[in-house]
Amino acid sequence: MSFDVLQKKIREMKNPTVAGLDARLEYVPEFIVKEAIEEYGETRKAAAEAIYRFNCGLMDALSDIVPAVKPQAAYYENLGWEGMEMLERTIRYAKEKGLFVIADIKRGDIGTTASAYSEAWLGKTKIGDELVSGFDADCVTLNGYMGSDAIKPFLKDAQSEDKCVFALVRTSNPSAIELQDMMAGDRLVYKVMAELVDRWGKTTDVGEFGYNRVGAVTGATYPSDLRQLRKLLPHTFFLVPGYGAQGGTAEDVHFAFDRYGRGAIVNSSRGIMCAWKKTGNNGTDYAEAARAAAIEMRDAIRAVTPIL
Amino acid sequence: MSFDVLQKKIREMKNPTVAGLDARLEYVPEFIVKEAIEEYGETRKAAAEAIYRFNCGLMDALSDIVPAVKPQAAYYENLGWEGMEMLERTIRYAKEKGLFVIADIKRGDIGTTASAYSEAWLGKTKIGDELVSGFDADCVTLNGYMGSDAIKPFLKDAQSEDKCVFALVRTSNPSAIELQDMMAGDRLVYKVMAELVDRWGKTTDVGEFGYNRVGAVTGATYPSDLRQLRKLLPHTFFLVPGYGAQGGTAEDVHFAFDRYGRGAIVNSSRGIMCAWKKTGNNGTDYAEAARAAAIEMRDAIRAVTPIL
Repeated sequence: MSFDVLQKKIREMKNPTVAGLDARLEYVPEFIVKEAIEEYGETRKAAAEAIYRFNCGLMDALSDIVPAVKPQAAYYENLGWEGMEMLERTIRYAKEKGLFVIADIKRGDIGTTASAYSEAWLGKTKIGDELVSGFDADCVTLNGYMGSDAIKPFLKDAQSEDKCVFALVRTSNPSAIELQDMMAGDRLVYKVMAELVDRWGKTTDVGEFGYNRVGAVTGATYPSDLRQLRKLLPHTFFLVPGYGAQGGTAEDVHFAFDRYGRGAIVNSSRGIMCAWKKTGNNGTDYAEAARAAAIEMRDAIRAVTPIL
Repeated sequence: MSFDVLQKKIREMKNPTVAGLDARLEYVPEFIVKEAIEEYGETRKAAAEAIYRFNCGLMDALSDIVPAVKPQAAYYENLGWEGMEMLERTIRYAKEKGLFVIADIKRGDIGTTASAYSEAWLGKTKIGDELVSGFDADCVTLNGYMGSDAIKPFLKDAQSEDKCVFALVRTSNPSAIELQDMMAGDRLVYKVMAELVDRWGKTTDVGEFGYNRVGAVTGATYPSDLRQLRKLLPHTFFLVPGYGAQGGTAEDVHFAFDRYGRGAIVNSSRGIMCAWKKTGNNGTDYAEAARAAAIEMRDAIRAVTPIL
């Protein structure tokens, strides 16, 4: 089962982290950008190529110590179709490297539209008599503001293609509270969402580690919420953003894990991708710097949360 | 101002409707699909080409009677990058035809990620010294579950590029109630969202018809909510899905308009795109059928809601 595959990778590497692939041109060392612009001019194609080379270099440096990558769709979409083409290649390369791919798309729509998104990111689309893949990630992030109609179509593909999803519950940003912390009846809005996640998850199968196919996004920046959510959702795998640059620490994210140090994965994007900016070598050592940052993060989390 | 442009088009055509471009292969007449598959095989390229030809035919048939189109991103994403490339072409063609383009993307993410989505769909991305467009729509739909952080970055581009957004408030689907109808304090969750929309809108300028740059998605299938929202949000332009196939009628959507019959646009996707399925001519008359359906919808709405 999909979250079992992820949990096993985490256990092998003793590393419950996912490297964000936020494909921002500002994160790519100058020498890579320059080369691509010389080749293709100041175009979307050049930007896409620069980022692809950087992504591949990062994955080469990380694939034996980090179990998963999380490309953020926004940073590919802003390069138009050339960005999306490069995202497909990035996902393909990640899989070749044995990395588990969480496509951070935060899609949320209903009915046949949700089915189309699901086909795009997890499943297949029928063309004539052929079933054809789209971006073919292992897992996606989703937004459940529209309710079950926005989630259930994905669960069909998750089940048939052995994949999984993370629904937004408690996000890591400051304005998360504006809606998510309103009192809804006797509960906060994000807890209503947590209960929906639990309900959706119960319609799927459960893997050997006890987790069903509907995970939750639960930000590191609200650790007391994390602790409560962990209790409330014993069968829900957590994706934890907000570590590092956004302020979350190894102590904060500890609450996301179960008693065996399982059931959660912590994201870092800038901390790993931009580690080269702190070494003073103009990015020529970006791969080593990323690897060192990933090891540091792994060890920091592991020191607080042993993984059994 | 962007919503003024739309309102003027609506007034000229006396037609407050937007034609959804849900690019489903099942909606495309067989003869178009067959031709594309003969040319390109059973591939994503073939599907994209078939849909593009259909989209263009529809827009040719509609552009003098319908003010706007709303491509739904999901149906392009599920054809991978070829679908996204075709979406760019579709948007370009729509603009050439003078149609106002609402990209139905329902994106919702935060900070720099939201900025990247905004660059992708409304603004421009910096590559070297060049500013390069992505999909370049006139307007997008957004999901505000993550709060202001998910909306504000779009307002910067909306202001500088003279564009606008619609945030989800009350969606038209049956499960909308699961979260949106929870009591939050003394209000329902969707009314909390409505107040956020009002607050975001007040940070932008207001056009000559009295509408600011932050519109709201308010489903036709909950007409009494529509009526309340119209009162609550006098400066908010409404995008109303759920007409026709989903059950909304001209009487239902009447409540979305202000006293001058302004401030709202009603979507129809299947009703127009699939009109050919009811004429018994195997889609050879899809353009005429779409045009007739659009005129019928226009007249039905206009009969209940005169546009001044």
